[in-house]
Amino acid sequence: MTLLSPLFRWDAIDNFFSDSARLQGMLDFEAALARAEARLGVIPRDAAAAITAKCQAQLFDFQVLSEGAALAGNLAIPLVKQLTKLVAADNKEAARFVHWGATSQDAIDTGSILQLRSALDRIDAELERLANSLARIVRSHRSTVLPGRTWLQQALPITFGLKAATWLDAIDRHRARLTEIRPRILVLQFGGAVGTLAALGDKGLAVANALGEELQLAVPPVPWHAHRDRIVEAASTLGLLMGTLGKIARDISLLAQTEIAEVSEPSVEGRGGSSTLPQKRNPVACSVVLSAADRVPGLLSTLFTSMVQEHERGLGGWQAEWEVMPEIVSLVGGALHHLASIADALQIDAAKMSENLDLTRGLIYAEAVQMALAPSLGRAAAHEFVAAAAKTAQEQARSLRDVLAEIPEVASHLSSRDLDRLFDPKQYLGVADQFIDRVLQSHSSHGHKSAGGRR
Amino acid sequence: MTLLSPLFRWDAIDNFFSDSARLQGMLDFEAALARAEARLGVIPRDAAAAITAKCQAQLFDFQVLSEGAALAGNLAIPLVKQLTKLVAADNKEAARFVHWGATSQDAIDTGSILQLRSALDRIDAELERLANSLARIVRSHRSTVLPGRTWLQQALPITFGLKAATWLDAIDRHRARLTEIRPRILVLQFGGAVGTLAALGDKGLAVANALGEELQLAVPPVPWHAHRDRIVEAASTLGLLMGTLGKIARDISLLAQTEIAEVSEPSVEGRGGSSTLPQKRNPVACSVVLSAADRVPGLLSTLFTSMVQEHERGLGGWQAEWEVMPEIVSLVGGALHHLASIADALQIDAAKMSENLDLTRGLIYAEAVQMALAPSLGRAAAHEFVAAAAKTAQEQARSLRDVLAEIPEVASHLSSRDLDRLFDPKQYLGVADQFIDRVLQSHSSHGHKSAGGRR
Amino acid sequence: MTLLSPLFRWDAIDNFFSDSARLQGMLDFEAALARAEARLGVIPRDAAAAITAKCQAQLFDFQVLSEGAALAGNLAIPLVKQLTKLVAADNKEAARFVHWGATSQDAIDTGSILQLRSALDRIDAELERLANSLARIVRSHRSTVLPGRTWLQQALPITFGLKAATWLDAIDRHRARLTEIRPRILVLQFGGAVGTLAALGDKGLAVANALGEELQLAVPPVPWHAHRDRIVEAASTLGLLMGTLGKIARDISLLAQTEIAEVSEPSVEGRGGSSTLPQKRNPVACSVVLSAADRVPGLLSTLFTSMVQEHERGLGGWQAEWEVMPEIVSLVGGALHHLASIADALQIDAAKMSENLDLTRGLIYAEAVQMALAPSLGRAAAHEFVAAAAKTAQEQARSLRDVLAEIPEVASHLSSRDLDRLFDPKQYLGVADQFIDRVLQSHSSHGHKSAGGRR
Amino acid sequence: MTLLSPLFRWDAIDNFFSDSARLQGMLDFEAALARAEARLGVIPRDAAAAITAKCQAQLFDFQVLSEGAALAGNLAIPLVKQLTKLVAADNKEAARFVHWGATSQDAIDTGSILQLRSALDRIDAELERLANSLARIVRSHRSTVLPGRTWLQQALPITFGLKAATWLDAIDRHRARLTEIRPRILVLQFGGAVGTLAALGDKGLAVANALGEELQLAVPPVPWHAHRDRIVEAASTLGLLMGTLGKIARDISLLAQTEIAEVSEPSVEGRGGSSTLPQKRNPVACSVVLSAADRVPGLLSTLFTSMVQEHERGLGGWQAEWEVMPEIVSLVGGALHHLASIADALQIDAAKMSENLDLTRGLIYAEAVQMALAPSLGRAAAHEFVAAAAKTAQEQARSLRDVLAEIPEVASHLSSRDLDRLFDPKQYLGVADQFIDRVLQSHSSHGHKSAGGRR
Repeated sequence: MTLLSPLFRWDAIDNFFSDSARLQGMLDFEAALARAEARLGVIPRDAAAAITAKCQAQLFDFQVLSEGAALAGNLAIPLVKQLTKLVAADNKEAARFVHWGATSQDAIDTGSILQLRSALDRIDAELERLANSLARIVRSHRSTVLPGRTWLQQALPITFGLKAATWLDAIDRHRARLTEIRPRILVLQFGGAVGTLAALGDKGLAVANALGEELQLAVPPVPWHAHRDRIVEAASTLGLLMGTLGKIARDISLLAQTEIAEVSEPSVEGRGGSSTLPQKRNPVACSVVLSAADRVPGLLSTLFTSMVQEHERGLGGWQAEWEVMPEIVSLVGGALHHLASIADALQIDAAKMSENLDLTRGLIYAEAVQMALAPSLGRAAAHEFVAAAAKTAQEQARSLRDVLAEIPEVASHLSSRDLDRLFDPKQYLGVADQFIDRVLQSHSSHGHKSAGGRR
Repeated sequence: MTLLSPLFRWDAIDNFFSDSARLQGMLDFEAALARAEARLGVIPRDAAAAITAKCQAQLFDFQVLSEGAALAGNLAIPLVKQLTKLVAADNKEAARFVHWGATSQDAIDTGSILQLRSALDRIDAELERLANSLARIVRSHRSTVLPGRTWLQQALPITFGLKAATWLDAIDRHRARLTEIRPRILVLQFGGAVGTLAALGDKGLAVANALGEELQLAVPPVPWHAHRDRIVEAASTLGLLMGTLGKIARDISLLAQTEIAEVSEPSVEGRGGSSTLPQKRNPVACSVVLSAADRVPGLLSTLFTSMVQEHERGLGGWQAEWEVMPEIVSLVGGALHHLASIADALQIDAAKMSENLDLTRGLIYAEAVQMALAPSLGRAAAHEFVAAAAKTAQEQARSLRDVLAEIPEVASHLSSRDLDRLFDPKQYLGVADQFIDRVLQSHSSHGHKSAGGRR
Repeated sequence: MTLLSPLFRWDAIDNFFSDSARLQGMLDFEAALARAEARLGVIPRDAAAAITAKCQAQLFDFQVLSEGAALAGNLAIPLVKQLTKLVAADNKEAARFVHWGATSQDAIDTGSILQLRSALDRIDAELERLANSLARIVRSHRSTVLPGRTWLQQALPITFGLKAATWLDAIDRHRARLTEIRPRILVLQFGGAVGTLAALGDKGLAVANALGEELQLAVPPVPWHAHRDRIVEAASTLGLLMGTLGKIARDISLLAQTEIAEVSEPSVEGRGGSSTLPQKRNPVACSVVLSAADRVPGLLSTLFTSMVQEHERGLGGWQAEWEVMPEIVSLVGGALHHLASIADALQIDAAKMSENLDLTRGLIYAEAVQMALAPSLGRAAAHEFVAAAAKTAQEQARSLRDVLAEIPEVASHLSSRDLDRLFDPKQYLGVADQFIDRVLQSHSSHGHKSAGGRR
Repeated sequence: MTLLSPLFRWDAIDNFFSDSARLQGMLDFEAALARAEARLGVIPRDAAAAITAKCQAQLFDFQVLSEGAALAGNLAIPLVKQLTKLVAADNKEAARFVHWGATSQDAIDTGSILQLRSALDRIDAELERLANSLARIVRSHRSTVLPGRTWLQQALPITFGLKAATWLDAIDRHRARLTEIRPRILVLQFGGAVGTLAALGDKGLAVANALGEELQLAVPPVPWHAHRDRIVEAASTLGLLMGTLGKIARDISLLAQTEIAEVSEPSVEGRGGSSTLPQKRNPVACSVVLSAADRVPGLLSTLFTSMVQEHERGLGGWQAEWEVMPEIVSLVGGALHHLASIADALQIDAAKMSENLDLTRGLIYAEAVQMALAPSLGRAAAHEFVAAAAKTAQEQARSLRDVLAEIPEVASHLSSRDLDRLFDPKQYLGVADQFIDRVLQSHSSHGHKSAGGRR
């Protein structure tokens, strides 16, 4: 499905999940295993060098590997076979010690963890970029008022800064999660056929420790062949991020509707055109993010389902992960990159936002009036009272303020100056500014934390 | 993810969903559109020939298409652009009429339907192969007795013929479904930008009809750009099939357990080995089918979710289908082919089945004894009575028959000859044979129907 | 979760899935079984009457059943126990023959099918009501023009009649599907412990046939204890309907946005208010339908996953259906009823639709101009040309028509009268009317078919 | 669906999600809000006491609430109305200040968080119980050997202690996760209609802080009405746990198969019987856990999908959570309790485990022999060599040891004593014991951490 990859995915992430990267991950395991075993005298020192020399993806025949995997049921078996042959060509003795004491799943799982680590590093960096773009928007639009909308209806004024601050705060939570899970997820898989490392006699744990050092991966208390919570935790943490990306894209695409037109994706020559409509500028990035937001949850449910694996190594569940986990990372990576790219240069039309506040002839200020009347009339009575005036205003297509002004009870409680204030959006923003400050403060402290926190 | 494709997928299906096939599906639409419009005098007759001549996937620059899709948000826009250029090189006049009156989605959706039609034809044929293999098993093992198992516990004797007959009957139901949905699914998509065909003036419907004829696709009452039930119906009908394939693979893999060993996948040199265990013969086909059974439901949930598309053409939902629908067909196709391949040569060990009937020292015949006692003692009393004997037999590791023989009440109701009969599996198979006959009869009548029923 | 039931569900459907209805479904099976067996002399004629007399849900102690189910793992076991006791109280002899020859799953599955049949009947009727409401809208708004929208951007004019026609056509497809699947789905489950009916000796099939007659359910070729495609087909067919309901609700909620305001849910005193905003009228029905559209796909993926059941009767998969299948029917039923209720009285503001066509100062007519220029300039050149004019119009906030009028090339090809026509929405509706006619015709022919088609 | 609740759920958790608990959660919010506002002089001190006095679920008319929710679209609106009435009956003045400055979603979300906190506490305790049971099994069965199984085939010997250690380690990881997420999840929701707290003027943040103190919930940087990652993180963390519970239940149910019989669920009078088979003892707890493992992933995918919520407060997505989140907690709680209950008294048959090691006539020791030969022959050659011997043994139904003994090359490398050792399962357990020690050590250190770590 290469034709659609540049649309849905992001090279910077996909490179970590190419065929070649998958292979290299496993080969990195095999090379490190040989070196670790040589350090401990389990295999000859020469063998390690000879094996390491051949652990390069570009030396392998992919066609043969692919057919071998179809026959054997996994990729490690033909890989070990081909690696053995490659090593033997130069050093027959060394070839005896390829894959010594390991099982297919050790290579496959550890390879996946290495791929995942690279991807998470790149995602972290892109998230930082996105967060910083959002922080800039928050700062610049701290005072830009627009209609807050609930249930797809205008509700009360907010600021665009506050709206973006809720986006930013969510993104920073995802950054925190992705930092937190690293120690639990980035671990070695090494257990041999059934998790006892029996083939290494009493040296299993020592080899595991040396291997962990080689790969800079922690050694977990026990192998986890049939316990997939680590993999699924990584995927579902990315899935949480996907939900937020989707939420932001949904917001942007709604704000970009022809009739609202408060925000639009950056204009790029040739981007988002139509094959037939000359005037169209489609929100392409949003479409990509929203499509990924539709796809990732289903993929996650597969991973959650697949956790129910049999005995020491499962049948079906494990195999289901092989394409699904990379697919999740790839879709989230693509969506993140698209969103980070438009966030940098989002077109924000403050004038149109202000205009849209006036669309309802003042109905959007109804709560403000109600709260002003509530101390005298009680919240419930004020609510009913203003609701009636709102209904009248709507039915007669008049401004709420005019309708209210005609009612003696209002005049007795609210002066014309009071009404001026109540119908000014800037006067009814509550603690939006303080919320913004809190988010920005949490954002900058996060920056410090994560700088140190990453690996 | 090419490296794993030969394991998880099946060329014969995947070829219909390659980049090249995706492109060709859209080009078939463009060529047929030009011909249909020429027939009706909407565009010059020359133009149709010139356009048709260039509608060949191999003439296109995939790199350019791919980058164009990333920019424009869909594949049709760069395709139309490139096609126009190709046509113009030979016939400038004709190039004016490329994609005349259509919208991107018309080409993309109709192209998908064409791909789907080819895939469904191939799947039908493979299903027939599988069904016929299962029918052979049913006939050969009509009298092969083995333990029927419920809740993963031995329950009562059945025949392997009956077991396979329930598989066969399910497969035949899927064949019927796949035949039934064709008229609803294999239809043209053609509506122009918003489903009015406005760019064709009053000729829209005439062009649609001619186009339908060209492509041998029915013309639906109205375009269905934002109504995706047809696509999802196709996918979920395949999803139902996937469930059955998974069920059969689960059965085979459980029967193939070392401790049960009643069935095994055909032995193929090099197949299902382990990278470390010399004695292993892993059920590779089952692992593939079971992994697909874990994956397809999640993909389906995406398609169901994505049906909620906005207005005349949606944002996100439609885009989500582009890779997910092919993925579903591909995974089901791969699983089907794997299962059809092992069904042909499934190794069935009737002796071991018979042995396993004896594992419980007769407990598997408990219901038979109970039913024999029930007319005298009542069903409930007989149940309690035999349950107690079963418990004793289990605790004392004795045969149920021996325990029963010692009880005077039994002797009074059941002679030793009665007991012989009751502990003979062949005597307690009920109407298994009649069920088998019904399934085989339904199967052969299906053969006749579907021969005529397919397109 | 009773408190939220009236919001999310619909009594008329939920009544078929209450505890009491679940129980009665199973009791209807037990009563019919006794009668069928009595007819064939398998059990005494008296026994059937005595058993039938007690097969009434209200005679049962739900607390005891519920605790019994928790212990035994299914509801049939305590039900049979309690039924036996109830029968024995009046007729000790008859009590011997309760549940004769059946297994728990026979009662549970057949009971579910009976519940499902009732629910499908009710859903059919409500779908007919919805379809008829939509047909009325199609007819009344055949000429009501509004902006067609793609990718959430205005694209070209359409009519509200056409928009509703695509809704109607989809609903009619669902009605056809729900009619088609009935013969495959509404079948008896009856196989005894392992699907051989061994406990009935050679009378199994005769009893099955008689039982099918009693319950007016077809007898399938073979029992289907571990083959769940029928159940999942019913659920996924409802899931397809759910997608369409969600799509319609998404459309309505977008059209009801404050800034678009073309459509709104019928106004009902007290409906859709806010706890704090006096002016709010939230689209409550849409929120319910959309929430169900988010929920049903996940539930479906569970059913698809659960199809992988073990051997003659599964462990886990079958049990997963017990609450999930009813939940799906209940959520779809609730959403359908909500939507049918608002469709009856949807508030449609044709004036606002017309107003919204003018929002873009004529950009919505860009394709019309392009197609008018295309015969002289070629489609591609005309596209680029009009796209440039559209850009100018947008940047200078002028009307597209004015911009075009200033360009000599346009004047030479299009007269002022031509432009009048091109900027009239009614002149650029293509074959919308013919599409509407086709849908209405298909709708009325469906009415005839389904009248006869239903059971 | 009460009849099945005792089977699938657990009172101790479900009580936190009853209608009454849902209501009480919201009322706790309303009462705390009044007190907080009174402390800050926003409302009269009297009002707080009067309101608090009425915030008791049992004072409310559920029928009225339920109908009100169906009309209004959420439960908070009728709750506030009824609460206002209740307060007014005693104190008209105080009634004015009910729900002062809050929005429906503040009450609903904060109420949910309070319910969730209670549930997480209970789940923590039950997890500790389960972990301790598993730790006991690990210690008692440190030396109990059984076949390790991969791909459902016997592979190499392991110990039951090691098997249980992998279960324990996974459970302890879940405990760590559930502790880690608490600070991020257990936070106040309080933002007013659009997240500005505008109705409270400049006192919004002060009230939020006081309210957080009242409820012992942290105050997040900004309200999170349309950002649902916290809720979904809680659910998906429970979903990870569900996967592990399912994996353990799958293992137990496979080990409990009639033909393997190494483990069984504790025997309880009346439990797991069949309605027709007297000898059956069905693994009821496993069926419940496995059915929940099929159901939770689909529910999670709904929550992930529903994260895409619109603007300041969404339409459909939020509403989808109301029943789905409790359903997830409830199913996980039920599964956890079932598993914890059987783990306490799991029946483990060490003799049968040992017997099953002999089923393959020594094939299970093939890797041991291979590794013993590898230093002389090379790993690859040794693998092929032993594989051939294994094949011969299998075909001729002889013991692998006998086949090997006849081969001169073996005799030259391995003495009869060597072979004795190689065919002794206890001699080929690698570092199983060390892995067990690591898990137990991590487990006891976890105990210390979590004791302090919980809230």
